[in-house]
Parts: sequence; structure tokens; C-alpha cells
Amino acid sequence: MTSRNLKITVEYDGARFSGWQVQPDRRTVQGEIERALGVLLGHPARVHVAGRTDAGVHALAQVCSVRTERDLTTDRIVRGLNGILAADVAVVSVDDVDDDFEPRFMSRGKHYRYRILNRVGRTALYRNRCWHLWSPLDLDAMDAALAHLRGQHDFSAFRAADCPNREPVKDLRVARLERNEPFLEMHFEASGFLKQMVRIIVGTVVEVGQGKRSADDIPDVIASGDRRLAGRTAPGGGLTMMKVLF
Amino acid sequence: MTSRNLKITVEYDGARFSGWQVQPDRRTVQGEIERALGVLLGHPARVHVAGRTDAGVHALAQVCSVRTERDLTTDRIVRGLNGILAADVAVVSVDDVDDDFEPRFMSRGKHYRYRILNRVGRTALYRNRCWHLWSPLDLDAMDAALAHLRGQHDFSAFRAADCPNREPVKDLRVARLERNEPFLEMHFEASGFLKQMVRIIVGTVVEVGQGKRSADDIPDVIASGDRRLAGRTAPGGGLTMMKVLF
Repeated sequence: MTSRNLKITVEYDGARFSGWQVQPDRRTVQGEIERALGVLLGHPARVHVAGRTDAGVHALAQVCSVRTERDLTTDRIVRGLNGILAADVAVVSVDDVDDDFEPRFMSRGKHYRYRILNRVGRTALYRNRCWHLWSPLDLDAMDAALAHLRGQHDFSAFRAADCPNREPVKDLRVARLERNEPFLEMHFEASGFLKQMVRIIVGTVVEVGQGKRSADDIPDVIASGDRRLAGRTAPGGGLTMMKVLF
Repeated sequence: MTSRNLKITVEYDGARFSGWQVQPDRRTVQGEIERALGVLLGHPARVHVAGRTDAGVHALAQVCSVRTERDLTTDRIVRGLNGILAADVAVVSVDDVDDDFEPRFMSRGKHYRYRILNRVGRTALYRNRCWHLWSPLDLDAMDAALAHLRGQHDFSAFRAADCPNREPVKDLRVARLERNEPFLEMHFEASGFLKQMVRIIVGTVVEVGQGKRSADDIPDVIASGDRRLAGRTAPGGGLTMMKVLF
């Protein structure tokens, strides 16, 4: 039996998960995938992930990896895992990769999308998948706020208090506002993100859009490194990890 | 009190509905909306709809109308109905319209989208919202089949046995295949549709894509007027009523 390293691309609806990472007595995506792998492969399995996601956050193409010596075809593994997993988590694809492949360290970056529904009427088809904001938003001001955030900065003001990341300087290569009816979408791409960084950025940019703060104050918030000067954390349900870039 | 005619735009996730039309002992979209209107307006309410949808079929912007003498603002009506309705049906907007507005007769047409997921791995985020087909599809052949269906034809071969429509000749102005990753989408627009017409067309075009029949046979299927010569009815969950055109 030869040792294999498998890259697993995973899609999930985050609504009923307590995020990615295994926690005692919580339903997590990692927990469900490791359980399914254990059943299919017949041995305990531990996966490595490209980027953890919080409770409520979705993924169209999260990436994790696992080692095994079982010689099932990749199609058999995809179908086998999908037969075991619950309906709100699915394996998109499985690929054999080099032995030294490790999703977090090998990725060039991640692409996240945040969806806002900005109208009086709520949604039925996208419930738990967008942030519903009734009052009108100033899109030009939001664009200006995002322009201040683009590029390389110390994002300490935009991370959760318990963020374990040792390097708060990140290069936010993409931070863009788009209309995609009926949604306003914000797209973000960076080689790495801090814990809750996207949601705190979105919460802050929305406060600019609501006229509660000025886009011109954003450089001071960044410079302060003080979480209390940034805005609220936007709800997890609006956020989707779209892609891991390799 | 003056008499008002209200145009109500409705979004719904069809998964847990037995379609639009009221039926005894079934949960239907019409039933839920009329119940909510009764609570909010304080009188029995009967709505008229632009186009009924089957069990499992979704809508982003279905349109119905109702008469009332209550003088609530339209924003109050939107918020009031959304507070009463269950999470899988939502009122997008309410507008005062002319007294003679009737959604079915006044509409210029409807736009439907059918989503196919053509890969081995199933989906989590779009479960009940697409048709999952594992085996590869010949897109050129599907394009050719759709070209035969576009335009004005007697679509009797593409309607349910119990379709009550008196006019089987419809002008299918749009019948188009698009890639919208990770989906294949078919878009259809016509002034009117027969019962299950879109789903039978999709089922037939998919059989062409799977090599089970030839695109060149489609004109004969149309000419036959015989439902048994067309393909299977595609599952309701892949279909969404996108828009009613006025």
C-alpha cells in the first residue's frame, strides 16, 4: 500500500454548523468530514484546512487534505463521502496531490464574498445567506472606504480579540463593491485573513454607507490597531468562502 | 375608504410547498399569502397570480394582486406580511396599481431559469435548487435542440396531461443554454407557458445532451403533439420563476 495525500474540495451551508473547527459537543464541518472519512477509509482521519470559517459562514470551495493508504478511485471517494455526509455539506471533488501539499501553506490566497440585501422586503430563497439591511446605503462612500482598506496594512483593528494569527499585516489585494441584483456584494482577496477580518471590514464599511462614520476616518482606524474603533462584526450568514487560490 | 388594487411581488423557496395554487390540506404559497393578507388587512383576501408554479418550483419575483380598502402604506404592508409569513416565503414589494391591473392578462411574459449541476460531486448550498446529473452532457447538441424549440410552435407534446390551457401554441422567444459556474442554466421566456412545459423541455433537451436522442428529432416531437414522444419531466427544484414582464 502506498501513502496518498488527497486534496478534498468541500461545499457547505454554514447555517447549522458551529464553524469549521472541531469543538466538543458541537456540530462542525471538520467533525462531519473526519467522521465520514473514518467510515469510508476505515481508519481515523485528520484533515488540514486552507482556512477556518466561523459559525454560519458558507463555502462553495473550501479545501482540506487528508492522508490515507486506501486505493479507492477519487470518484469512489467523492461518491462515498457524499453518501455518508448530511445534505448541508458536500464533497465537490477529490484529487491526488504531492506528498508535501498542505492547503494552508500552499495557498496563494482566498476569495470571500459578502452579500447584502438592501431593500425593505426580506428574502426567502437567500435566508441565512445575506445581511438584510432596510435603510438606503451610500455606495460611493462605501467604495471610498474600501479603497482605504485595499493594499497592505496592519489589520489589528479588524480582528477578533482571540485571533491567534501572529502576523497582523495582510495584503488585501481585492476589496471591491459590486451590484449583483438583488444583492450588493463585497469581494475580498488576500493571501491570508485574520479571524473575523472580512466580517469586521464589512460591518465598518456598512456604517460608512449608513452615514454613521466617514470613509475618511478609515485610515485612522487602521493606524490605531484598536478593535473598538472599527465597526460591528457583520453576521456570518452573509459570508461565503468562494475559492482557495493555489 | 377608497378601493385599492395592490401588486404584490413574492419570492419563495418551493421545497416545502405543494406549488402555488390553494389545495385542501396542502401547504401552498397562495394559501400562505392569503392567510397573511387576511390577518394584516382584517378581511378575507383572494389573490390573482401571474403564473402558477408546481410543487418544488421556486420564484424570485412572482406577481399577484389583491383588492382592499385598508389605507396602510405599502411599506407597512410589506413589513406586516413579512412578519406573518414563514421564512420560506417573502414579500419583495407592494405597489398600488390601476384598478384594471390583472397579473396574468397584463403580463407580456415570464422568464424562467432551470439549473443543472453537471459534475460527480453533489451540492450543499444549492440542494433542492438544481438537477444534479453526473454523466457528461453534449452542450452543442443541447444548443441545437433548443434552437428547434425556439419560436412559435404548438407545444402540445410538452405539456402535462391535465394542462387546462386552451391555447397550446406559444411563442418561445428565449430558449438559451448558458454556463454560470458551477451550473449549466437554461433560460426561457414566452408570453405564456403550458403546464410543466419548461420542465418537459428541459427533460427532453437533457436526453439529447446525454445522447439518448438526437436534436434533429425535436421537430418531429413538436409536430406529433404527443407527450409520450417528448422526454421525462425535469425535477421541480431546478426551476425558478425569475421575472414577470409587464
